[in-house]
Formats: sequence, C-alpha cells, structure tokens
Amino acid sequence: MNDLQRAQACAEKMMAGDNASRALGIGVEITTVGQATATMRVREDMVNGFNICHGGLVFTLADTAFAFACNAYDDLSVAGSGHIEFLLPANLNDVLTASAREEKRSGRNGFYTIDVNNQEGALVALFRGRSVSRGKRILGDENDT
Amino acid sequence: MNDLQRAQACAEKMMAGDNASRALGIGVEITTVGQATATMRVREDMVNGFNICHGGLVFTLADTAFAFACNAYDDLSVAGSGHIEFLLPANLNDVLTASAREEKRSGRNGFYTIDVNNQEGALVALFRGRSVSRGKRILGDENDT
Amino acid sequence: MNDLQRAQACAEKMMAGDNASRALGIGVEITTVGQATATMRVREDMVNGFNICHGGLVFTLADTAFAFACNAYDDLSVAGSGHIEFLLPANLNDVLTASAREEKRSGRNGFYTIDVNNQEGALVALFRGRSVSRGKRILGDENDT
Amino acid sequence: MNDLQRAQACAEKMMAGDNASRALGIGVEITTVGQATATMRVREDMVNGFNICHGGLVFTLADTAFAFACNAYDDLSVAGSGHIEFLLPANLNDVLTASAREEKRSGRNGFYTIDVNNQEGALVALFRGRSVSRGKRILGDENDT
Repeated sequence: MNDLQRAQACAEKMMAGDNASRALGIGVEITTVGQATATMRVREDMVNGFNICHGGLVFTLADTAFAFACNAYDDLSVAGSGHIEFLLPANLNDVLTASAREEKRSGRNGFYTIDVNNQEGALVALFRGRSVSRGKRILGDENDT
Repeated sequence: MNDLQRAQACAEKMMAGDNASRALGIGVEITTVGQATATMRVREDMVNGFNICHGGLVFTLADTAFAFACNAYDDLSVAGSGHIEFLLPANLNDVLTASAREEKRSGRNGFYTIDVNNQEGALVALFRGRSVSRGKRILGDENDT
Repeated sequence: MNDLQRAQACAEKMMAGDNASRALGIGVEITTVGQATATMRVREDMVNGFNICHGGLVFTLADTAFAFACNAYDDLSVAGSGHIEFLLPANLNDVLTASAREEKRSGRNGFYTIDVNNQEGALVALFRGRSVSRGKRILGDENDT
Repeated sequence: MNDLQRAQACAEKMMAGDNASRALGIGVEITTVGQATATMRVREDMVNGFNICHGGLVFTLADTAFAFACNAYDDLSVAGSGHIEFLLPANLNDVLTASAREEKRSGRNGFYTIDVNNQEGALVALFRGRSVSRGKRILGDENDT
C-alpha cells in the first residue's frame, strides 16, 4: 500500500475503536498524508449553560482532526499538548469543520495546526498541538502483506 | 445572598442549561468563590481508538471546572483560550477530578489554573485558561430580591 | 498614504523607539499589511549556559515580528499572550528569521502565527500570539496630511 | 553534596556560561530544589516602541527562572515549549521577579509554572513551560568527589 493508503488504513482502524468521536457524530476524512478533516454538527446535547457549543467539544473536534493527522505513519502517537484560541461561539446546529495540517515532525514529536470553521466559513477556533510517538504500530501484521 | 451563595446560584443556573456537561456525567461543586471542582468517570463512550480517554474529553472536564470557577461573579464569561498539557493517559472507569482556581481577574479577562487528577491522585493534565467577560449577568432579576 | 505605506509608517515609528529590538540587532521588514519579517544573528551575548541561543531571545525575535505585524493598522496593539514550541536549538552566529502572518482580527484581538527559521531554512520554533488593541493610534496627526 | 547543594552547583555552572541572562542583568537564586527565582530591572535598552518592557524580555526572565528550576537534578534540560499570558505592562526601572515552581516531572519532561511580579507585587505575567531532558549531565566529574 502507498503512503496515503497506509494513512487511511490507520484512520480506519483508529475510528473503529474511537467510541468518543463516534458518540459525538464526528466524521473524519484523510485525503493527504499528515492532514485530516473532522466534521461535527452541534447537537442539543453539546450546548452549555449559555446555549452555545461547549468549548471542550470544539477542542475535542480539533483534537480529533489532530489525532488522525498525526497518526498517518503507522507510528502510534498521542497528544502531548494542545493550545486553543476561541474566536467565535458555535451555535446549535452549526456544522463545524476542523482542518489539521502538519507543521513538522521532529524526533518523537509532531507539530500540527488545526483551524475550526463553521458552515459559513467563519473561523471559530485556532488550535495547535504537539504529538508524542509511543513507539508502537497501529496496524497489525495483516496489513504488511 | 453572600458571595459564595451567589457563585453557587450562578453554577446552579449554568448547570441547568449545560446539556454537554450533563451528557458527559460531569458533576460540579463550588465551595469557594473563584474555584470549582468537576468530576467525570471515563465511560465506554469516552475512549478513543487507543482505548484511553479521548484527550478532548479530558480538556472538556477541565474546561467545565474553569467555566464554573470564572462565572462566580454573576458576570457572564466564556473561555477565550485554553492550554493543556497531557501527562498521563486516563483509562476506562477512571474517575477524573478537575480543580480550578483563579490566578487573577484583570479587566474583562480572568486567568485560571486547572489540575486534572485521577482517582489515585496522579496528575493527568495541567490546564490554563483565559476567560472573557461578555458584560452580561447570569442571574435574572428574581435573584436580586 | 495607502495601507502598506501606513503599515510601514507605523513600523518605522515603532522601531525608532524600540530600544530592545535595536539592542538585539533585530531588523524588521514589512512588505505586506498584517505580515512582518524579523531577523537576528545569534551573538555571543545571546547564548545561555548550554552554549545555545537563550530560548527567551528566540521568543523575543518572534514576538518582535508579531508586534510589527499586528500594528499595521495604526491601532496600537500589545501582546496579550504567546505560545512557543522550540523545535531546534539555535547556535552562535546562526541567523534567525521570524515570519509573522495574520490569522484573524476579531474585535480588539488579533491572532498571529510566527515561524522562526535558521539560515538553512530549518524550523527553529513555532509561535502563536494574541494581540490586544489599546484603542490608541501610533501615528501622530502629522501623518494624516 | 545534598540535593540543594547539587541544584545550586548546577545553577552556578549554568550562570557562568549564560551570557544572555548576565547581559540582561538577571540574577538567579535557588533556595529549594525544583524552584528558582530570577530578578531583572527594566533598563533603557529593554523598552519597546511603546515605552514599556519588550514582552520578549519578560518572557526571557520567566524562561530563565524556568531553566534554573528544571536543571536542579544535574540532568541537562532545555525548554520544549512555553506559554505566557501578559497581564500588566512592565515599565522602565520596574524590578521584575519571576518565581518558578515545579508541577511535575514525568519521563523526559518537566512541567513548571512561573509567575512574574513587579516591585509592588502586582502580577505582570503568568508562564507555563515544559522542559525536555537531553540525557546529559551538567556537572563534570570534579563534582562527584
């Protein structure tokens, strides 16, 4: 399999076990190695006491895009840190898209930038994350053949 | 009502509308003005593809404690930014506690530090957030009497 | 004067009073509104006890590019926060270039991303900053005519 | 030598080579292992174009306290990342004190919180940093005897 196919195979295996992202209705797409797009509609059970999307769930969407982008290499990686700036509230039924791109991989760390936009293309949040490799594979040996 | 009662009244009103925190089973307690404790058990629907708690939901827990701490003054405030360092994975059925404390309120901004620990007292994450006042009240006029 | 000329006039006036950047030998160039490039050679008096450039001075270079980028509009702005990831040490005599670009201006805040590269084009640091407008002008009235 | 003496010996050796901190007139004191205090007076050559201390130099002061706190164990460590919130401008001749304390050491990483106050005890900046061990010693063998 080529690099993109490997990235997509990692994503497929991750998503199969990712109860959290699936429970939030997050859809993920990989069209380029080191990048990922995650989409989520703001549901009734996602708003906070001020009737806007809980900021933690905006972060979760961005973090999901980040996780799928940084795990493109069959080198199991987790988030080491994340920094988010909230620019605009997200409202009920908004459809948010988080686009993750790789800035740099360096040793065990990877650095990713994620933008979150709403359905009108307005910037909702800016995110930057650092991934840490755990030194393990994602795909089993069946994927080597 | 005194300052603590006002903080608790704000928290009660916020939690009543906070579908997101309730859907995640987060419980919040306010015993000091400017502080808040939020607790969450890592459920089956909160793990990611690596079978650990989705980092976004650890952030969400910390962000909830932050939100309740910074809204103690009946001055509606939202998160402007958040920075999290993940130190330890949280596992299924872990019970996480996020403790938020105020560092400083300054103009429209407030600065809060949140520690997330697991049931064994081990540090899972370090969070720092900046709140922004919207210049509105949380409590209605019925609370003035 | 047009937008770029105004940005450059702001930069010129800022640099005239910017003892700190001048003492560090930082040169700034503005070729696009909302962007700025700052350059610094790592001098003998900039290395730390491990014989690499003090991280604070790498931050300072990035922060300078940020300051000049966000003050392009004759709306005096200061840094509200900055987040830096250090990827590579900078060595004595390295020539570092910080390139700042605007992500978004929103109300009193602006969000900027700054990359710091060395003379070989290797990424030394990733920076993200939030600016805050003070609601004052930079240019005096003599610049209105 | 005991733990505090070792921390102080590391600090002494670091400061001897730390041209940058010395050029900025920064003084460092270690009275507890894993903590450090750094002090700096805002000089004429430290102000920016708005006649306040360049934010980069406030960061540099905090980063110095951080570096001395995290290098207490004779395990050479550098800054991996730093996040700063600027709360108050520092003015010419202000005397700033950065106090660093350890939150947690975990594997190759350490997490430190640094507060910067001015001479009146007002909070100027909040800083959080992550250190990375390089797996080398600071003290030479002469210190083993």
